[in-house]
Amino acid sequence: MTTILNDWDKAGTLLAAASRVVILTHVSPDGDAIGSLLGLGHALLATGRQVIMAVDEGVPPNLQFLPGSAQVLPSLAGVTTDLVIVVDCSDERRVGKVGEAARRLQTPWINIDHHVTNVAYADANIMDPAFVSASEAVLNWLHKLNLPLSPDVAQCLLCGLVTDTLCFRISSVTAVTFAVAQELMAAGANLSEIVQNTIARMPTSALLLWKQVMPSVRIEDQVTWARLTLADKQAAAFDDKNSDGGLVSFLLQADDAYISCIFKEKENNQVEISLRSVPGFDVGAVAFNVGGGGHKQASGATLDGTIDEVEAKIIPLLKAAAQAGAPLFH
Amino acid sequence: MTTILNDWDKAGTLLAAASRVVILTHVSPDGDAIGSLLGLGHALLATGRQVIMAVDEGVPPNLQFLPGSAQVLPSLAGVTTDLVIVVDCSDERRVGKVGEAARRLQTPWINIDHHVTNVAYADANIMDPAFVSASEAVLNWLHKLNLPLSPDVAQCLLCGLVTDTLCFRISSVTAVTFAVAQELMAAGANLSEIVQNTIARMPTSALLLWKQVMPSVRIEDQVTWARLTLADKQAAAFDDKNSDGGLVSFLLQADDAYISCIFKEKENNQVEISLRSVPGFDVGAVAFNVGGGGHKQASGATLDGTIDEVEAKIIPLLKAAAQAGAPLFH
Repeated sequence: MTTILNDWDKAGTLLAAASRVVILTHVSPDGDAIGSLLGLGHALLATGRQVIMAVDEGVPPNLQFLPGSAQVLPSLAGVTTDLVIVVDCSDERRVGKVGEAARRLQTPWINIDHHVTNVAYADANIMDPAFVSASEAVLNWLHKLNLPLSPDVAQCLLCGLVTDTLCFRISSVTAVTFAVAQELMAAGANLSEIVQNTIARMPTSALLLWKQVMPSVRIEDQVTWARLTLADKQAAAFDDKNSDGGLVSFLLQADDAYISCIFKEKENNQVEISLRSVPGFDVGAVAFNVGGGGHKQASGATLDGTIDEVEAKIIPLLKAAAQAGAPLFH
Repeated sequence: MTTILNDWDKAGTLLAAASRVVILTHVSPDGDAIGSLLGLGHALLATGRQVIMAVDEGVPPNLQFLPGSAQVLPSLAGVTTDLVIVVDCSDERRVGKVGEAARRLQTPWINIDHHVTNVAYADANIMDPAFVSASEAVLNWLHKLNLPLSPDVAQCLLCGLVTDTLCFRISSVTAVTFAVAQELMAAGANLSEIVQNTIARMPTSALLLWKQVMPSVRIEDQVTWARLTLADKQAAAFDDKNSDGGLVSFLLQADDAYISCIFKEKENNQVEISLRSVPGFDVGAVAFNVGGGGHKQASGATLDGTIDEVEAKIIPLLKAAAQAGAPLFH
């Protein structure tokens, strides 16, 4: 187990000595990665420092509504700096090409994060899993630095909080989370703008994927499932390899469902299964027993065979798991 | 326009004189109706008063996880009381049969609500549209009465806040809303239990309705729509006459959609249309022009004809409305 990393003083000393700062985050950035990056960027810009922000491939279109996103660079070509700060990234390799370029600058690094898996790869490392988002970690740092919250800072940090908590839905949300949200709203954040651009939006290709997949939905014995074929993905022009467009979580919402599963057809006669369960049921053990892994409430595995074959093997296991549990929240 | 109703002092005086209290809410109660009812009920029980809570047809199954729900009666037969308090109800008629029975008891009434349409039907009326939920109104009253927040009170009031704000998604959520959530969490509310039982659940018949309807989804020129036929409802055993199972809001989430529409087939060769738009587009005017009504972001109408005929008439109007607007949050 990683313990809490709390080099707050060392981070403050490194920052105090730096007049030029590079801020980075992880590849394939989500709302918390970009929100933390920009929130910290706005706050440090207001101190008079030169601030360079970068992420491989730049800011994704859905997050370009955030103030300052046009200033985020897709590479570090030609950049010099005194200090590198990485937000929301547990492992240096996940910083991507801009991380490799930053390492060649031979300056101190600060790592500020909320993932319990953080490997403390910087000179000053800050990580507390009690922070529900990296943006909450950044907010705590701004407090320690006595830096004010402009509306732009608040907007970017609230984006991180809203997206990483699925708009306050996940079980790690506490009274502190709401206190953070209150502070950011009072500082001028616009919640509606964040909601409309992030959690209330989905790619049109995902909607078209649902159109393809939904006719295959079944529900029996507290288990609900659907099939996502290669033909479905092609028909929907859905090219996100790592996603099912949110389907497996959606299926679990049905009153009579305790366990949900999506069977995703892969190349090479393989099928990936993605599993979810409500508290009180364990799909981690099911995945583990067929060579996969995960947690009680979310797991997955990849099996050889056709969808028909894999479905015939997995559905009885899921029905048994549904039979073996009892819902904690029903 | 109704102004704010703030008979706090009179309400306090009426309550101080009462040792037996009846608490009611509106028919077809939602999470805020039952949450406010039970939250106030728990708080007044703790003062030593006799508390009778009632709602026509009792507490719906999905809200029976709330503490005290088993004490809520489906009628007022044989009840006597000193005071009637109605929560979350803008109009006395919406209190239903238990409201009629309560009126015959000839006691004073208090009305505590957050709907701007409240018609001030009680002896003491409290309504402020700045409250995002009736449970926030109740919380304010408990503060004025110096009554403590037990975990049960907090849980019921947070249920009202979470369900009426769609888990903090609606545009009227402010810093104050988050302060209320923080207070209720600190007092012992269990957010996960609320989320798992309310906003993260849908009737299985609604899931099966989506299965039927999704293949009809289309998206063109920033307008997305689908058809919900009588046969679809029958196949899904979906019998909620006033609902589309959440489909029209879901469709609007697509990146390329500014306007969404569900065409609902009715008996007697009629079709009901349900419309939604993102801020910056006006579907209220479209509905008004075909004999319906509503707001810029949500409206509806009922038209004569087959789905084919109504679709042929409405889609060009929606495409024109999509062309005429510009998204405020893109």
